[in-house]
Amino acid sequence: MTTTPAYDALTQTYQRLHRLGHLQSIASWDQAANMPPKGNEARAAAMAEMSSLLHGLRTDKALADHLQRAEQEPLDDLQRANLREIRRDWRSSNAVPEALVRRRSMAQSRCEHAWRQQRPANDWPGFVENFREMLAVGREEARLLADLTGLRPYDALMDMYEPGTTCATVDRVFGEVRQWLPGLIRKVQEVQARQPVIEPVGPFSVQAQRQLCGEVMRVLGFDFERGRLDVSAHPFCGGVPEDVRMTTRFRDDEFLGSLMGTVHETGHGRYEQNLPRELLGQPVANARSAALHESQSLSFEMQLGSHPGFVARLAPMIVQAFGDQPAFEPRNLQRLLTRVKPGLIRVDADEVTYPAHIILRYEIERPLLEGEIEPEDIPALWDQKMNELLGLDTRGNFKDGPLQDVHWPAGLFGYFPCYSLGAMYSAQWFAAMRRAMPDLDAAITRGELEPVFDWLRTNIWTQGSRWTTEELAVRASGEPLNPAHFRAHLEARYLG
Amino acid sequence: MTTTPAYDALTQTYQRLHRLGHLQSIASWDQAANMPPKGNEARAAAMAEMSSLLHGLRTDKALADHLQRAEQEPLDDLQRANLREIRRDWRSSNAVPEALVRRRSMAQSRCEHAWRQQRPANDWPGFVENFREMLAVGREEARLLADLTGLRPYDALMDMYEPGTTCATVDRVFGEVRQWLPGLIRKVQEVQARQPVIEPVGPFSVQAQRQLCGEVMRVLGFDFERGRLDVSAHPFCGGVPEDVRMTTRFRDDEFLGSLMGTVHETGHGRYEQNLPRELLGQPVANARSAALHESQSLSFEMQLGSHPGFVARLAPMIVQAFGDQPAFEPRNLQRLLTRVKPGLIRVDADEVTYPAHIILRYEIERPLLEGEIEPEDIPALWDQKMNELLGLDTRGNFKDGPLQDVHWPAGLFGYFPCYSLGAMYSAQWFAAMRRAMPDLDAAITRGELEPVFDWLRTNIWTQGSRWTTEELAVRASGEPLNPAHFRAHLEARYLG
Repeated sequence: MTTTPAYDALTQTYQRLHRLGHLQSIASWDQAANMPPKGNEARAAAMAEMSSLLHGLRTDKALADHLQRAEQEPLDDLQRANLREIRRDWRSSNAVPEALVRRRSMAQSRCEHAWRQQRPANDWPGFVENFREMLAVGREEARLLADLTGLRPYDALMDMYEPGTTCATVDRVFGEVRQWLPGLIRKVQEVQARQPVIEPVGPFSVQAQRQLCGEVMRVLGFDFERGRLDVSAHPFCGGVPEDVRMTTRFRDDEFLGSLMGTVHETGHGRYEQNLPRELLGQPVANARSAALHESQSLSFEMQLGSHPGFVARLAPMIVQAFGDQPAFEPRNLQRLLTRVKPGLIRVDADEVTYPAHIILRYEIERPLLEGEIEPEDIPALWDQKMNELLGLDTRGNFKDGPLQDVHWPAGLFGYFPCYSLGAMYSAQWFAAMRRAMPDLDAAITRGELEPVFDWLRTNIWTQGSRWTTEELAVRASGEPLNPAHFRAHLEARYLG
Repeated sequence: MTTTPAYDALTQTYQRLHRLGHLQSIASWDQAANMPPKGNEARAAAMAEMSSLLHGLRTDKALADHLQRAEQEPLDDLQRANLREIRRDWRSSNAVPEALVRRRSMAQSRCEHAWRQQRPANDWPGFVENFREMLAVGREEARLLADLTGLRPYDALMDMYEPGTTCATVDRVFGEVRQWLPGLIRKVQEVQARQPVIEPVGPFSVQAQRQLCGEVMRVLGFDFERGRLDVSAHPFCGGVPEDVRMTTRFRDDEFLGSLMGTVHETGHGRYEQNLPRELLGQPVANARSAALHESQSLSFEMQLGSHPGFVARLAPMIVQAFGDQPAFEPRNLQRLLTRVKPGLIRVDADEVTYPAHIILRYEIERPLLEGEIEPEDIPALWDQKMNELLGLDTRGNFKDGPLQDVHWPAGLFGYFPCYSLGAMYSAQWFAAMRRAMPDLDAAITRGELEPVFDWLRTNIWTQGSRWTTEELAVRASGEPLNPAHFRAHLEARYLG
């Protein structure tokens, strides 16, 4: 007889959710990477059926009772951490009544579908019309989650992606960055204006790019016996920890974008491939959070990927792929990878200007979700903040302004901060690595990447969701989130 | 208020099964076409979880009551046909108790797994040891299904793949073929001994083969907006009717095998792509049966694929793909595609010797499943029948004998006859087409394939499971299964 019957019942349910979710993940990857266009209607119906089934399992009446009884059972620390994560998952699924789930799904598919035409048409008024309902659903969700958790509405939304991180923290951290970022961007641009850069000359064969990406993934330790690289319109890292499905996209006139995109996704991929295996399928074995995930992709893409030592290793591989040309000289390559230029589009932004895009979105999204502003107010705020942060005029250009991201039409509210928190955590990890291994940069320059992977594996990947994000940060780096490391990283790399 | 509440409840359940089965089908295709090797354990667990869930839906206690009440409801003919098919599906799922399902699954995975080593090792005694349990499960299933249906045990097994076809029919049909087949094979070999054939000279680039297969599929009307062609170790046609996933495999020393394999799977694919759409997801909209499915792949591969008119169309495409060589002259190509040579391996057999392999298996499998013989008796029977039918000695060669097929280690009993019934139906369809369109062969020679596709679409594809197989055959061709058409086809093509 087990002494933890309620806990055991919960783990069985979550094992089941993990297995069925596996099929949903693979189908979702397939939808992006393989599915022929006219397969979409049946696929959408199949995935909706599965979502409803998974939601049904998560909202089974018995779980509330199991959760309550499990709290009284003699659990060890790991089980207790798992129970905490189960409760978190259960709470977010049960906070929202079935009717609102359906209303969300309808609003989302209508708003996102129309947005795909409205964005290229620069049709802001048309978008607002559909977005109003999506926002109403988001506000209602935020309110219900807030009632349940005792958090303020936007915190309750963020909690789904970045548990434990609140507006208080984000305001403090982003507030700090806001002080020094515009000045830093100007200074970097002054420095870089004196550094000539040679552009690579295409075309770059897609086959050669594909092979190069595979080789770089191998250098970065991706396990191809437990994952793949394929092509999709929007690169992502999907699948399941046991079978990671990364995607990228190729253009034949440019290769650095997809190469560094692949390096980015490889960071996500290695996190997933190295999550703790003993409890796989249980929430405690999942990746900690969206920002932590982003901290891994950015550790690979930015901290490591643009590191002069790594770029020197990359250069001969690029020459091997496309033949030699002046642009592939390591110093020039590194300049190509670290060029800073304020632009309108977030996903095209460099490491230095990226946080400006996030701060802007957070400063609009937070009051929007908490009812302090309305959709009509967005364009003026957008323009004002783009001016302050990046010195850009966006008036009348909605398509490269508030219409550029899928997040709002898809109702993904509370996610944006994770991108920049991830960048900050990644700088914090590398600062901790350098304290522990003063030789780190020399090792990277010698082509030794294992010390980086070992540190990340020990401190981040294999920890799964055993600790809260703050506990994890303190255990790994001796302190909670500290944006000073990000600033130091940018100053060292771009002004040093 | 609907007047058919019980019928409606059934259709809802089957709609749900269709949608969830969609994910299972795509995951199964992915497992064969994409999955990295170490992803298998998690995938197997995910698919087992889903199988158990689908089985649970099919054995829900409420269905028995719905089925009974639906019989009394005012249904139209189509609904009544759907109800008949629902009942058939329900019966086969509910005949077998959960414990036997689990026992089957264990026996199957043990027997099939060991067989993968035992076949290359020619280890018949080792195989028999595991096979005994697989057979015991098969016999028990057959007995339970027989009790439920009133059919004899082997008929009850066949009924799962080929509903309505019984040993009485198979004995009669195969008995007839057995009379004339060995003589025909000898005569064809005599004729062909005087016809020199030029072999194609490789290598054949895999990329060119892949492109050629795609082009031939387009000529055959496959809709790439609703399906794909990929590569797997064992070619199959999977996915769902809305998104058909065909696979093939390529070798660079030979191309005709994979090309004609692709033509074969395209026949399966077009059947799936052209099933009736109005009731898709309901059993009545499924393909009629395994033999009917095989009749489509063989209509494409054999009736059409080796037709001199079609081969003449293929020849320039082959030249385009690999450059010109003497072997690609249309008459020579046709000889290559129709060479008859008795061999040990079923899947490598030509159109003429293939039925011998099936008759042999049926004549062993039927008494084996009905307890008249035991596994120990198989090798002697195998050798005796290979001698009678194909003049081949198989003593001691188990790996190219009873160990060659996956069907027995996988517990797929009752399926083998469908292959040859399919070949016979396909000859019957083409005979009916020629009666309706005396110009058919000339049209094919002119490169016009639409008359063939139109006839198959009207008479087979869009009929789904609306009729029993016999009704369908009579509606399409004026008579039930008649092997005389198969004999006439072989004599015309090989002795004509």
